[in-house]
Amino acid sequence: MLIVMKKGATENQIQAAVAAVKKRGYTARPIPGGDRVSIGVLHNKGSVDAAHFLGLDGVKEVIPVTKPYKLVSREFKQENTQVKIGEAVFGNGTMPVIAGPCAVESQKQVLAIAKAVKAAGAKIFRGGAFKPRTSPYSFQGLGKKGLEYLTRVREETGLCVVTEVMDVDTFDMVEESADLIQIGTRNMQNFSLLRRAGMSKKPVILKRGMSAMLQEWLMAAEYIMEGGNVNVILCERGVRTFVRHSRNTLDLSVVPAVKKESHLPVIVDPSHAAGVRDQVFSLACASAALGVDGIMVEVHDHPEEALSDGAQSLYPGQFADLMEKMAAIRTIIEAP
Amino acid sequence: MLIVMKKGATENQIQAAVAAVKKRGYTARPIPGGDRVSIGVLHNKGSVDAAHFLGLDGVKEVIPVTKPYKLVSREFKQENTQVKIGEAVFGNGTMPVIAGPCAVESQKQVLAIAKAVKAAGAKIFRGGAFKPRTSPYSFQGLGKKGLEYLTRVREETGLCVVTEVMDVDTFDMVEESADLIQIGTRNMQNFSLLRRAGMSKKPVILKRGMSAMLQEWLMAAEYIMEGGNVNVILCERGVRTFVRHSRNTLDLSVVPAVKKESHLPVIVDPSHAAGVRDQVFSLACASAALGVDGIMVEVHDHPEEALSDGAQSLYPGQFADLMEKMAAIRTIIEAP
Amino acid sequence: MLIVMKKGATENQIQAAVAAVKKRGYTARPIPGGDRVSIGVLHNKGSVDAAHFLGLDGVKEVIPVTKPYKLVSREFKQENTQVKIGEAVFGNGTMPVIAGPCAVESQKQVLAIAKAVKAAGAKIFRGGAFKPRTSPYSFQGLGKKGLEYLTRVREETGLCVVTEVMDVDTFDMVEESADLIQIGTRNMQNFSLLRRAGMSKKPVILKRGMSAMLQEWLMAAEYIMEGGNVNVILCERGVRTFVRHSRNTLDLSVVPAVKKESHLPVIVDPSHAAGVRDQVFSLACASAALGVDGIMVEVHDHPEEALSDGAQSLYPGQFADLMEKMAAIRTIIEAP
Amino acid sequence: MLIVMKKGATENQIQAAVAAVKKRGYTARPIPGGDRVSIGVLHNKGSVDAAHFLGLDGVKEVIPVTKPYKLVSREFKQENTQVKIGEAVFGNGTMPVIAGPCAVESQKQVLAIAKAVKAAGAKIFRGGAFKPRTSPYSFQGLGKKGLEYLTRVREETGLCVVTEVMDVDTFDMVEESADLIQIGTRNMQNFSLLRRAGMSKKPVILKRGMSAMLQEWLMAAEYIMEGGNVNVILCERGVRTFVRHSRNTLDLSVVPAVKKESHLPVIVDPSHAAGVRDQVFSLACASAALGVDGIMVEVHDHPEEALSDGAQSLYPGQFADLMEKMAAIRTIIEAP
Repeated sequence: MLIVMKKGATENQIQAAVAAVKKRGYTARPIPGGDRVSIGVLHNKGSVDAAHFLGLDGVKEVIPVTKPYKLVSREFKQENTQVKIGEAVFGNGTMPVIAGPCAVESQKQVLAIAKAVKAAGAKIFRGGAFKPRTSPYSFQGLGKKGLEYLTRVREETGLCVVTEVMDVDTFDMVEESADLIQIGTRNMQNFSLLRRAGMSKKPVILKRGMSAMLQEWLMAAEYIMEGGNVNVILCERGVRTFVRHSRNTLDLSVVPAVKKESHLPVIVDPSHAAGVRDQVFSLACASAALGVDGIMVEVHDHPEEALSDGAQSLYPGQFADLMEKMAAIRTIIEAP
Repeated sequence: MLIVMKKGATENQIQAAVAAVKKRGYTARPIPGGDRVSIGVLHNKGSVDAAHFLGLDGVKEVIPVTKPYKLVSREFKQENTQVKIGEAVFGNGTMPVIAGPCAVESQKQVLAIAKAVKAAGAKIFRGGAFKPRTSPYSFQGLGKKGLEYLTRVREETGLCVVTEVMDVDTFDMVEESADLIQIGTRNMQNFSLLRRAGMSKKPVILKRGMSAMLQEWLMAAEYIMEGGNVNVILCERGVRTFVRHSRNTLDLSVVPAVKKESHLPVIVDPSHAAGVRDQVFSLACASAALGVDGIMVEVHDHPEEALSDGAQSLYPGQFADLMEKMAAIRTIIEAP
Repeated sequence: MLIVMKKGATENQIQAAVAAVKKRGYTARPIPGGDRVSIGVLHNKGSVDAAHFLGLDGVKEVIPVTKPYKLVSREFKQENTQVKIGEAVFGNGTMPVIAGPCAVESQKQVLAIAKAVKAAGAKIFRGGAFKPRTSPYSFQGLGKKGLEYLTRVREETGLCVVTEVMDVDTFDMVEESADLIQIGTRNMQNFSLLRRAGMSKKPVILKRGMSAMLQEWLMAAEYIMEGGNVNVILCERGVRTFVRHSRNTLDLSVVPAVKKESHLPVIVDPSHAAGVRDQVFSLACASAALGVDGIMVEVHDHPEEALSDGAQSLYPGQFADLMEKMAAIRTIIEAP
Repeated sequence: MLIVMKKGATENQIQAAVAAVKKRGYTARPIPGGDRVSIGVLHNKGSVDAAHFLGLDGVKEVIPVTKPYKLVSREFKQENTQVKIGEAVFGNGTMPVIAGPCAVESQKQVLAIAKAVKAAGAKIFRGGAFKPRTSPYSFQGLGKKGLEYLTRVREETGLCVVTEVMDVDTFDMVEESADLIQIGTRNMQNFSLLRRAGMSKKPVILKRGMSAMLQEWLMAAEYIMEGGNVNVILCERGVRTFVRHSRNTLDLSVVPAVKKESHLPVIVDPSHAAGVRDQVFSLACASAALGVDGIMVEVHDHPEEALSDGAQSLYPGQFADLMEKMAAIRTIIEAP
């Protein structure tokens, strides 16, 4: 159930509504919007009587919600959520680009790539310090050392950084270093990790699971929001299908589908979907034309020597070309 | 195996090479290119000795082919095949748009829609006279009468028309009426129909099967080309996956993958992939940004009354907006 | 809508009910059952008033049907349909086995294999004369000559034979030679072929399409039944998934699901699902334990020399072992 | 690389070989077999020179391994691994059955069901104390209290118990209470959890991920074995496909495929695959006929009141019938 406050509702009125919800044994979760505040009523078993709240001062209306997700739902919050990281805003009609190598390999490597992607217009630098790898014998990332290299990237270039967190144990460490925390596709339903992310003050990118239904993905985001963290960015990165000409199948139709169901920003990672460089450029342009809230692309200065996913990384020169194309496409899409 | 003739090879030299191939019990299939002619050697069991042909007048080189497909392969023919229908060209860097209703319902309906899509810039009109339907109790199309309505559309608007052929029995009838013949997704491996299409003088759109691998799709095109019809256009229309937020999953990564493997033009039909109108617009823009050789979109003037697939048809006004966006995106993509 | 006749309804009463249906512009399709006859009312647009038929002599009840399929539905006909071919019965609790090579290769080959599988207890011989092949350059079957070889198999061994029909043009020829006609996975939605099969007097095996939903498969069977042919056997043969350790994924859960929805017999072909011999034995035993109405298995006396699908064919000795295991499993399953 | 010791190799010889491996900077992981010990050489970058080890006392041969997995591979260890839990053995040709409710709901409930399944012949009791749920608002399990209820089940019935572990934080607690630890489908690639399981002394059931390839599943088991825990049981529980007539598609062909690649025991959980009770019975019989190393089935005494997955739980009476059928089928399969 959703309690929608009037436009001019005071902080006292909001707190009174929250108290009324709690008094009945439910959880109240205020959701700030541009114009007004709504209050999500959670953890109710069975239906809740709207009459309890309708008479309170400052309450405009009370809306029952039928979808299994609540806080992520557009029924709960009509206007787009905007997630701000440094000067980048996801969800306001711009399309910030996140770029960098799959894995942090050395201080020199990340600085070189960071400078290149910044020059091309990227707003956020990506690089994995903890790497989830199918094989225990593959390069597992530099760990803490990798986080330090990322910190230096921020200091030297001014770029914000995003990196993946793999478990609750290392969450504090990652949270401290990163401006934006990524939860990877294999952990989309690692509910303990989602709950921890829900308690973080840092925004979170939640990648779609390899075979996640739209509803499962939104429910995973609900876990994070239910914990109190409203800064969630959804990221489509391809799903597993019978297809063999690309590593995964990029499901672009999920973007308009998410935007219909949810107010959360949604970005696209064409690199992991494609798995091969020559599809990444095309799919990134296609994503830009779709009206996504951001793009995440892998860039490497020496992809042939990359310790992870080199085959799908763009060269810095290709990336600069791509940025120009995407910006031009974006202008067309945003034109009335 | 492929015999590549020299640039200035004479018709006599080509015929001599063809005769040499036939003499050894193989089939020879000349493939005209922009610069030179190649001759595909087919139906050989095991490997063929290149020496038989290398010494012939006018022969430049002889290339063994390892892919299971031959005639459709870019190894066989490096430059893009261009398929011309009226003033539309598929494969030359332009992006002709095919538009119209799912099914031909009446003379009035098709004329009204045809005028609207022509005004918006569509080059070819689509409309089904024979409809493959999951249920025997659903509207099966107007058949011969539908073809007559399409003929009148051509006469009145000057648009070329494409319509689906469902079987060998009605092939002659469809072939006579249509400028471009469509083989639908359920018939992608209807090999008898493919063979018949191979004998046609009319160009063919071959839609990808619901769960076809890239290679199976190209092999289906090979059936048509093997029969002598070189004017084949491939059409991606979504594949079946676990996903439920769209009718099918549009697999845009197949477009660059096709272009790498084959010289045939490839177009995208976002309407059947999406199944819902509000995804079609976005996916069509994304397709345009991908560099496809054409787009096929369903348009209906009264979609809520359509006898088939109304929910995914654009309104004429939306289509006109889409055409503008796609043309602008296209300009960016084609810029160096 | 379904008109259910009383147990002792006379032929005249049935004809009168049929006439009443036709008079209102609908199609009537009588469905003989063990105890009583039902009459399917087809091609009605919108709902039909039950009152028209309830008062007729011999009519027991009138049941509206909500599923998109009618004639195939268990709502229409509660007891299992039994399809008889020679001494084999599909649908009566026995489990006849169909065995033979993928393709008919020579008279000698089919006779040798037929004798072996008969000795092991197979009731029906399989062998393809017309082969749907992904590549136009693969062996396409012996055609008419292959049908003649099958006729000789019947004459010499007394086994009934099943073979695949690929198109309407060759249907008469196949229908004349075969005791049981197979429609392959790639033709499950070849609606022209289904309609032709609906007019045949011979029973039909309808293989499930590579990515067919249960409902689509039943609707394809509905096309055949709607034409008047009630002898349809459904055959699960694996579906396409992301999996790579088998050629297709055998979907055994579809068997109980079909039995719940439909009265038609359902058999399983583990050979095409597995694609490799060492899975076929196990999957055939599993199918027997599932309570299927029949099994279809590929057997070849020299699989390493087979012109098609040798890798998945059992040796005659393995097949004989399998028959023993399956019969024993069957006894357990059928025990109360 | 694998170092295979001679049959009578002494402990000293084994330790010397281990030391030789470590001296070169690699990891040595001894793998006890029935006849002899092998030593896996791990964490080598690039190829290792066999000559280093071939001359050592007690070394029979040195085998290079090309598969990405090592310790789980049948190349490494030819004979089946047997995992013993109480009197149950997985991998020795018997087929122990694990049964119980989806979730632990109360002391009374688990005791009642445990007694019923024990009476029917189950060897191990299952019940979830920590439940991974798609929605944060669904019942999340009783946690520690649920573990206590399971302990009492062991004390009162003598059954061993298996329960799911969801994260590293609660691993110690679960490890202490359970005889067998389950890692669920959503955590198959939770690598931190796999590493923790690798350090456990308790055996582990590793469920296949929702869309895991065979190789990915084996690599996940490799993570556990690489940590030193050799008691891993693989569990197929259905994969995600386009199908809608069952919750997931039970992929039985993966069982022979696993057995070919790996020495680890593999069991089947038909309950989660089917999602509906009337398919579970059939699929369990089919699994028994396939020669699996065990079966896991959900049983509930009041499924209609279950807090989780009631629709797929068998009634105790059905379960008893199933046990009889499965035992009889098993006898047939195991007969020579």
